[in-house]
Amino acid sequence: MPRSSTARARLVECAGRRIHASSYATASVEHLCADAGVQKGSFYYFFRSKRDLALAAIDDQWAHTRATLLEPAFAPDVAPLERIARFFRTVADRQRSDVVLGCPFGNLAAELATQDQVIRDRVRLVFAGYQTYFEQALREAAVRGDVRETDVRGAAQALVAYLQGALLLAKTHNDATTINMLADHAVKLAGGTNQRTEPA
Amino acid sequence: MPRSSTARARLVECAGRRIHASSYATASVEHLCADAGVQKGSFYYFFRSKRDLALAAIDDQWAHTRATLLEPAFAPDVAPLERIARFFRTVADRQRSDVVLGCPFGNLAAELATQDQVIRDRVRLVFAGYQTYFEQALREAAVRGDVRETDVRGAAQALVAYLQGALLLAKTHNDATTINMLADHAVKLAGGTNQRTEPA
Repeated sequence: MPRSSTARARLVECAGRRIHASSYATASVEHLCADAGVQKGSFYYFFRSKRDLALAAIDDQWAHTRATLLEPAFAPDVAPLERIARFFRTVADRQRSDVVLGCPFGNLAAELATQDQVIRDRVRLVFAGYQTYFEQALREAAVRGDVRETDVRGAAQALVAYLQGALLLAKTHNDATTINMLADHAVKLAGGTNQRTEPA
Repeated sequence: MPRSSTARARLVECAGRRIHASSYATASVEHLCADAGVQKGSFYYFFRSKRDLALAAIDDQWAHTRATLLEPAFAPDVAPLERIARFFRTVADRQRSDVVLGCPFGNLAAELATQDQVIRDRVRLVFAGYQTYFEQALREAAVRGDVRETDVRGAAQALVAYLQGALLLAKTHNDATTINMLADHAVKLAGGTNQRTEPA
């Protein structure tokens, strides 16, 4: 627990971590307050409900994911298709641990989409965010003639689906290497060949 | 509630339906007994725990999925790649309703894989079952020269991942047409082209 941060920031961080490690339903407000070292009375000063805290945690995790995973992986120092391959490799590396947790956003959608439309819509925005990165790389690849794909938006959405499925399989197998094996197939979805592309 | 069936069978069917429509955590034993019209005392005559009922529900849903979805879709009356396309189309058709529920097996893995190893392993077997159908079709397609793929097992696992991801996106968008759009890309993963194959 990072004591130097504010109580609100600690709650957001702890909620993101605990919900990712278990589930939304099992992460009670009592648990989250204990994790963050915050009194339950203070909780309701910062958040109206567990849902509001979960939404803040999604926003926080998404900002972190963009800054530390997506921006570096999709940096233009390598060819566009290689950025997609690098992204999948980085995802696999980050899932390596004793317990593979899968995607914090996909897990929430699977657990809650039929029960909580507000959380569902927030995850939908995150998925759209991932899609934007794939789409940009595919457009550049098309300009270079690296892909045959004409439906760039469709291919980008297919890559989001594939990413989510690969993470769910890795979680179900409790084996992050599943993602790397599967990542070799991701380039096919990108409309390219199965060959690893060379850096630009 | 099908009154003619036994109390145990009603519990299994109601559990499968309620967990799929909401989540494992929110489907209490009280709810499930009320759904099935069974006294709580009787519940523990049939099942030691909610987990045991959930395992029976998984087995029941998997038997039903094989008999009514996989066997018909993968019947050898059409070419192997067309069977895969037919499978995805049927999955999309079945998800059409006011609320898209996603995959009963994938939902459970996403919610519980880090919390319950027994349920996680049961879902793993189901995923392996799906993979067997894809693998058989891909092997036949390879013999016919319809696919370039050499790693048939890897491609079959990639299709399982893709299926799960497509279902999760459909659930998150609450829109089953997502699966059909995405299904057009599934044939690429099969190692074929993006063209619809003709019946054999």
